[in-house]
Amino acid sequence: MKLVLEDWVEGERDRIVATLCDWLRIPSISAHPDRAADVRRSADFTAALLAGAGMEHVEVLETAAGAGLPSVYADHLHAGPDAPTVLVYGHHDVQPVDPLEEWASPPFDPVLVDGELRGRGAIDDKGQTLFQIEAVRGLLAGGGMPVNVKFLVEGEEEVGSPNFERLLEAERERLGCDVVVVSDTDMWAPDVPSVCVGMRGLIAYGVALRTAKADLHSGLFGGAVPNPSHLIARIVAALHDADRRVTVPGFYDGVRPLTDAEEASMATIPMDEDAWREMAGVRRLEGEAGRSVLERIWTRPTCDVVGIAVGYAGAGVKTIVPAQGRFTVTFRLVPDQDPDVVGAAFEAWVRDQVPEGVDVEVTRMGGVAPALTPVDHPAMAGLCRAVERVWGKAPLFTRIGGSGPEEALGRILAAPVLYLGVALPDDRFHAPNERMVMDQFWKGLLAAGELFGELATP
Amino acid sequence: MKLVLEDWVEGERDRIVATLCDWLRIPSISAHPDRAADVRRSADFTAALLAGAGMEHVEVLETAAGAGLPSVYADHLHAGPDAPTVLVYGHHDVQPVDPLEEWASPPFDPVLVDGELRGRGAIDDKGQTLFQIEAVRGLLAGGGMPVNVKFLVEGEEEVGSPNFERLLEAERERLGCDVVVVSDTDMWAPDVPSVCVGMRGLIAYGVALRTAKADLHSGLFGGAVPNPSHLIARIVAALHDADRRVTVPGFYDGVRPLTDAEEASMATIPMDEDAWREMAGVRRLEGEAGRSVLERIWTRPTCDVVGIAVGYAGAGVKTIVPAQGRFTVTFRLVPDQDPDVVGAAFEAWVRDQVPEGVDVEVTRMGGVAPALTPVDHPAMAGLCRAVERVWGKAPLFTRIGGSGPEEALGRILAAPVLYLGVALPDDRFHAPNERMVMDQFWKGLLAAGELFGELATP
Repeated sequence: MKLVLEDWVEGERDRIVATLCDWLRIPSISAHPDRAADVRRSADFTAALLAGAGMEHVEVLETAAGAGLPSVYADHLHAGPDAPTVLVYGHHDVQPVDPLEEWASPPFDPVLVDGELRGRGAIDDKGQTLFQIEAVRGLLAGGGMPVNVKFLVEGEEEVGSPNFERLLEAERERLGCDVVVVSDTDMWAPDVPSVCVGMRGLIAYGVALRTAKADLHSGLFGGAVPNPSHLIARIVAALHDADRRVTVPGFYDGVRPLTDAEEASMATIPMDEDAWREMAGVRRLEGEAGRSVLERIWTRPTCDVVGIAVGYAGAGVKTIVPAQGRFTVTFRLVPDQDPDVVGAAFEAWVRDQVPEGVDVEVTRMGGVAPALTPVDHPAMAGLCRAVERVWGKAPLFTRIGGSGPEEALGRILAAPVLYLGVALPDDRFHAPNERMVMDQFWKGLLAAGELFGELATP
Repeated sequence: MKLVLEDWVEGERDRIVATLCDWLRIPSISAHPDRAADVRRSADFTAALLAGAGMEHVEVLETAAGAGLPSVYADHLHAGPDAPTVLVYGHHDVQPVDPLEEWASPPFDPVLVDGELRGRGAIDDKGQTLFQIEAVRGLLAGGGMPVNVKFLVEGEEEVGSPNFERLLEAERERLGCDVVVVSDTDMWAPDVPSVCVGMRGLIAYGVALRTAKADLHSGLFGGAVPNPSHLIARIVAALHDADRRVTVPGFYDGVRPLTDAEEASMATIPMDEDAWREMAGVRRLEGEAGRSVLERIWTRPTCDVVGIAVGYAGAGVKTIVPAQGRFTVTFRLVPDQDPDVVGAAFEAWVRDQVPEGVDVEVTRMGGVAPALTPVDHPAMAGLCRAVERVWGKAPLFTRIGGSGPEEALGRILAAPVLYLGVALPDDRFHAPNERMVMDQFWKGLLAAGELFGELATP
């Protein structure tokens, strides 16, 4: 059976690759305040893409009254009142790029090598958003859209979507839909297609300590004054016990045990921990005692300190007792952990670790709840059929350890969230040399076309 | 009684301050490889200063065959064969300046405010080297030098003098002297003059860990791969036990107990721990259990991690498991700890802390042994008289927790080391807003003139 966009895409490949490269050249790093103008430029680029594809009512949506970074909305509502409405979600902001020296080519100067497009945002998430937009363009160029479609492309996903819930609340009516489709996740392997049914939640905190007014000479003062290096080391070391379980009181209280069906679904996954270890580029695995790697990355909550900065650790040696230091910690959460409950427990715990006479500042940086899609929803069957037609195999059900605003989308818009993601586990999300394997991109575009059809006739 | 340089200095103050400002404008940061040209510029400036003061045989001495940073030598040997020879030691390199944002004025744009000259190197050690050079100029402008004098002004002191011992060995004959005078230490208080009799030694290590080929997404991999933040935190936390004693095996083995005379001398020090705490700019004191602050900073060995850098702890949040991290640790040593023995014990210990499958790189960065000057040497009595004549009070004997190449100077040149230092404890050595209190500078210049006279007639 011919796929609906199979012929159309043949004449479009060069244009689409060039478009993606243009988008990737915009360094829309939402974490860097001095890149705000670039994120706005990326929003304008997204709006133009959507308009060019035939979408209507294209609008750049400010967040936090202009103090946040903009999302982009567009719709095309001509499938008739009885046709369902699909909201496609993606994001146009990207991660920071350091360590820059580990990139084989400049992060914002995309290159196509060996069938991979390399550059920051290639997979997360400009590339995956683009194949959805192009699928709409292709359908409109052919027989028209079989469903009503809306796009919402966010600009603050990589900083934890701080303003996204308020945006969803404020625009709830305009965003109303029957199903949400997200393309921001991965597949098990190119020859083992899978669809994601859940993501972990995320909370992040910055913790800053100050022990002295200024750095002190480590000879004149060292040994008699507090040293934030040692204080932070003790706090970070205390986050886990010897079994690598998180020590924050009550941390595991909200964790819902897996159902028998979920356990059975996990058991179908052809996990090879050695191969996974190699793909990760590490020589050892470690984590919560008594848990498999899949449990550790999908169904168990975790804690990772993503950065520590104290004093001077650059070239040479600066003989100081530093006056201050800071670290950033993220917690990945699973159903039914509540980000606010876990966050409050962490805040209380960390303040408790800091001795009298040391200043501490704890800053919450965004947060999203864990998300789980019901596998027995009819739309999920449509997604599985669409994937099977393109990849030639029925997909497995997987989860993803990463986090996004999907829980809020599903909850506030009261719709199931489907994940049509084509990333591969070694596409280097958030890391140097991020890439899109273009064969997956073209399959994603075809599958998006199939999925719109499936959703039209449930 | 009139001091020998008292009249001369009156006409010279403006010129001397302007000279010091010119010197301080050279950012001779020895820890930054890209500042090597500035350190060389500072060496040339030093050479010109010495020549201008009337010193002879001025020479910029390369170290490590030009791969190191240069020292400057000069001499003036016209006091006759029976007059003793004094070697004055100082250094013209300075510490790095970060955190730059904590400087009230730019570090290399010196300003004179309220009788203090503020700028990097003002006290450590350009200012203290300059009053020695100017004392020689003053004496030569008057009746001539009462002793033979040599200067050795180092360019790598702030990076642990990695090439200094080899330089001393190579130039042992030319540097031959009866006494060494060092101006790189501090006094108890402006109204409590003191002379230093010992300094702590120093060893420094950089420790770098790599757990993965590249940073990993903390959602996709977090919880199942090693995280260098946590590894480094555990290592740094393990450096001290609950009593804040260093846990490296054998660390305290070489520590020589204080003699009764040393204990008695310590007891004369008018130490007010609350006032010291305020001067340090900290709200709490902590250190080795059962020891006073003076013991902790003078007579006990210590360990301070001077910097930690792992992952991304800047603005916003980067959701990674970092691939690498590093920390820099310094140990301050006391007689008779051997830097090589302690260093080897630390190296073995730290490698032991790193689990299989994680790459570790341990780099020794310089090292100096602890130094102690015999208090019963006749030259020491001359130093005390010189200080008493200028400050109006007999000096106390103190130690200094800092470190320098003084032990090597005394050992290789087989001469006692005298410390004529005028810094004050709150002059912010190595920290933002480093300063020279100019009243101390002028007194130091006068005392240097007196000391040359004292040493001429033991």
